[in-house]
Amino acid sequence: MSSSTAILQLICPDRPGLVSELAGWVATNGGNIRHADHHTDLNAGLFLSRIEWDLEGFLLNRDSISSAIKSLACDLSGEAQLYFSDELPKVAIFASKQSHCLLDLLWRASSGELQMEVPLVISNHKDLEPLCAQFNVLFEYVPMNFTSKKEAEDRIIKLLSQYHIEIAVLAKYMQILSSDFLQAFPNVINIHHSFLPAFKGAQPYHRAWKRGVKLIGATAHYVTATLDDGPIIEQTIAHVSHRDEVEDLIRKGRDTERIALARAMRLHLKRQVIVYSGRTAVFA
Amino acid sequence: MSSSTAILQLICPDRPGLVSELAGWVATNGGNIRHADHHTDLNAGLFLSRIEWDLEGFLLNRDSISSAIKSLACDLSGEAQLYFSDELPKVAIFASKQSHCLLDLLWRASSGELQMEVPLVISNHKDLEPLCAQFNVLFEYVPMNFTSKKEAEDRIIKLLSQYHIEIAVLAKYMQILSSDFLQAFPNVINIHHSFLPAFKGAQPYHRAWKRGVKLIGATAHYVTATLDDGPIIEQTIAHVSHRDEVEDLIRKGRDTERIALARAMRLHLKRQVIVYSGRTAVFA
Amino acid sequence: MSSSTAILQLICPDRPGLVSELAGWVATNGGNIRHADHHTDLNAGLFLSRIEWDLEGFLLNRDSISSAIKSLACDLSGEAQLYFSDELPKVAIFASKQSHCLLDLLWRASSGELQMEVPLVISNHKDLEPLCAQFNVLFEYVPMNFTSKKEAEDRIIKLLSQYHIEIAVLAKYMQILSSDFLQAFPNVINIHHSFLPAFKGAQPYHRAWKRGVKLIGATAHYVTATLDDGPIIEQTIAHVSHRDEVEDLIRKGRDTERIALARAMRLHLKRQVIVYSGRTAVFA
Amino acid sequence: MSSSTAILQLICPDRPGLVSELAGWVATNGGNIRHADHHTDLNAGLFLSRIEWDLEGFLLNRDSISSAIKSLACDLSGEAQLYFSDELPKVAIFASKQSHCLLDLLWRASSGELQMEVPLVISNHKDLEPLCAQFNVLFEYVPMNFTSKKEAEDRIIKLLSQYHIEIAVLAKYMQILSSDFLQAFPNVINIHHSFLPAFKGAQPYHRAWKRGVKLIGATAHYVTATLDDGPIIEQTIAHVSHRDEVEDLIRKGRDTERIALARAMRLHLKRQVIVYSGRTAVFA
Repeated sequence: MSSSTAILQLICPDRPGLVSELAGWVATNGGNIRHADHHTDLNAGLFLSRIEWDLEGFLLNRDSISSAIKSLACDLSGEAQLYFSDELPKVAIFASKQSHCLLDLLWRASSGELQMEVPLVISNHKDLEPLCAQFNVLFEYVPMNFTSKKEAEDRIIKLLSQYHIEIAVLAKYMQILSSDFLQAFPNVINIHHSFLPAFKGAQPYHRAWKRGVKLIGATAHYVTATLDDGPIIEQTIAHVSHRDEVEDLIRKGRDTERIALARAMRLHLKRQVIVYSGRTAVFA
Repeated sequence: MSSSTAILQLICPDRPGLVSELAGWVATNGGNIRHADHHTDLNAGLFLSRIEWDLEGFLLNRDSISSAIKSLACDLSGEAQLYFSDELPKVAIFASKQSHCLLDLLWRASSGELQMEVPLVISNHKDLEPLCAQFNVLFEYVPMNFTSKKEAEDRIIKLLSQYHIEIAVLAKYMQILSSDFLQAFPNVINIHHSFLPAFKGAQPYHRAWKRGVKLIGATAHYVTATLDDGPIIEQTIAHVSHRDEVEDLIRKGRDTERIALARAMRLHLKRQVIVYSGRTAVFA
Repeated sequence: MSSSTAILQLICPDRPGLVSELAGWVATNGGNIRHADHHTDLNAGLFLSRIEWDLEGFLLNRDSISSAIKSLACDLSGEAQLYFSDELPKVAIFASKQSHCLLDLLWRASSGELQMEVPLVISNHKDLEPLCAQFNVLFEYVPMNFTSKKEAEDRIIKLLSQYHIEIAVLAKYMQILSSDFLQAFPNVINIHHSFLPAFKGAQPYHRAWKRGVKLIGATAHYVTATLDDGPIIEQTIAHVSHRDEVEDLIRKGRDTERIALARAMRLHLKRQVIVYSGRTAVFA
Repeated sequence: MSSSTAILQLICPDRPGLVSELAGWVATNGGNIRHADHHTDLNAGLFLSRIEWDLEGFLLNRDSISSAIKSLACDLSGEAQLYFSDELPKVAIFASKQSHCLLDLLWRASSGELQMEVPLVISNHKDLEPLCAQFNVLFEYVPMNFTSKKEAEDRIIKLLSQYHIEIAVLAKYMQILSSDFLQAFPNVINIHHSFLPAFKGAQPYHRAWKRGVKLIGATAHYVTATLDDGPIIEQTIAHVSHRDEVEDLIRKGRDTERIALARAMRLHLKRQVIVYSGRTAVFA
């Protein structure tokens, strides 16, 4: 099970024969398919596919696969992404003062549950520096305030580039990234502490308490320029009652947040998420 | 267990000694307490209590209990409600074209799971008349359109009065009751097919699908003049994926709707819900 | 979406190229694949596949598809099942005295949520005859006691044959079918009122209460000769607390039972369940 | 909210007037009740009560409260426990090689979410010593094998006594404590990686996989001399599918285990759990 695989993600206009075409291409080149998942969005007229096959015994090397996939996508008027399971994605974690999500991600990375490399943690506060030290992860303190926000974001973008970061994870970062930032670095996952689209924006637990809800939630989503509006990857909930004060919602919420974020990260890292039309297909 | 009980619901300003005072009053009059639940809302400075005790062996008769409770509430500057478990509440169910919630409530009433009497069903369509006939429940057809809305509501209010209805249940009624109606008859429970406060108003499943959520929900709540904003009694959820079309959300939603509504009705009928400050305390 | 489809379920020894081969066969014959799901059981060395494609435009007629599938399965040393989505399965529901599962299934069938035909209900008690009359379903009273058990089962088998029943559903039937019966008619789904393998056998709620569990469950499974040991299709749970008496577990359990059974029936009817090695793959 | 409270847990034979008597005693001595929860086990004829009141303004000091409670319990032929919220319980965590539960508990203790003091961690392997060092917690390596089991347990009992440990938590300790040990030190909470009573004993995930269940669970319970049979405090579940291998069950299980254990610990530490007749009442 642990040998290396190639993973293809494809989106293209739907038409008959696509599954056969893709599977046929893998088979023709000697590939053994481990997972093949497809979805047709009838409204959008789109075909989505994720195919994972063994590299062992495959007749093409990685460069040739890459070229072949490009030309395949071109033929199908689609877009393709190619990944290799043994190339660990480099992930930067953004945090602020709260430790629960950061600790959870670092622990899951160190135990091998999340297959990623975390070269650096970025924070606008120094509180979590010791935690990063314990995991031997570089901690970059980038204070964030309105006068220096552009400057701070520029510095962060430079860091992300310097460390070849594929994706940034906002692990309770509590800062809104500018649209300039997202244009320069669009691969960002956020954990929002509500059941979106309810309670977008600030202080969702306070507002949930005030509304008297009986369930609270957490939502892991890709970040877009519109606040808390990006494609949703995972949502989790917890029960609350009239006995719960705001601080109890916050406490219960910590568990839903870290579970939702960890699941979303795993799905992303396994290349099981395809984003299209503002939403996600999750092949799990 | 099945012998009759009295149930007191009390809200009053918080101060030390209230639990003792209430329990002491019951004990002094020979009552055996079955359930005693209390909650203090620290923000509001309010004390909420629900006490249920056996009528068998109690020294006061029902009228005397009623008088005593009134004077007790007055002494505490609070408000009290008194119920007797053997007096079945009369409930009117409002429905439209969809049968799932109506059938569910009628079945639970007939099996004794929901201890209520349903003297009539009111609907703006005739589709569900045969279903009501099967359960021997009077079906009142009250068409609802904008020219006659006031007239229609007046007729409904007259029916509710005529049949001594305590509470109306909107079991997918799909109509918005006017504030005039609610002033005349304020005791109404609704099932909304979303996880409030997300997707208030019309077509929540369509909007949930469009947003790409991974969970859908249903919310049973008391109705107020502001749409989908009343005190929440119960919320349930169901998982959805990218494979689910809008009609799948609607199908999965039917189960969450009827479960949420049935649970809310049971809580209400057992007098386990106290409404205050736009929210509920649920002593279950 | 509502046009007719063919559904192939295949189990065969795993080897490279199978996905391509199956998809290629469909494509070659002009088929448009709607759903293609595969699973490899590495321990067992088995490949499982479910492929659903449009009949409209397909070059082979139903008989030819059937022959082709047989020969395909033979070539792959596997076993195949072929279904057509517009051929409604005939289902017999077995019930006893409790109505909740029977009513639920009949209602879901009548509303079109469960795409099946229910020609008859079989029961060892007469209690549910009126309910069946309301849905215009034939009710066969087959009393079951130890002296006549063989006789009773023989009569049931004759009825199942007479009405061309594909599958029997034990909707709280509370009787154990003999292994002779199952040999004669092996397609049976049961709902067991516990979270299997906990509390196999009689009175699971009483035993759950005694054990002091905090969750109760229901399990829908295919029936085998060993009691409560067949392949599991679906499991659901409900929370309980020390406040719940046995009758509360039974009441809460009714909702988990009917939800689990309805979901399992839908999966079965959609041909989304493949049974192998005493377990199920569920392609939902 | 953060001022100190006294918490009384009482079990005694049921009779009318008990709620009034207890609440009256608190009120008479100037106490303000924050929480009062009661339960009557009708089968056992037992009354259970948990009352929490403010120490500020209470007329009796701690010693006098203690004496009064003892005499109260004696009068009622019952048993009482008294706790003060500002006296942090001393907890010993037992671990083996897996870090997830240990890390989770240490982090929750350090963040103040679990109000306990952890003077030492005991383990039969050295793997987790560095983790304990990071949290400045004493790590005692007590190898456990059959020839030395009695010796090892004696050493542990001595440690527990030396550090004034109130309760031991088996955080994936993977060792069975002898009945001699439990007689000497009976206060032990365990996390078992199954939905008890299913899959008692060794390798529950392997057996769950083999059985083909669709849900896995974790159970936090007090330990008794009979394996995996003690009073259950909390149970959690996770969904699994045919795609999940045993290692996936183990991975998903880690999250359910640590959540169930953390919740159980919180309930225990808040003195919200009363054990009686082999089961628990949880006043949450």
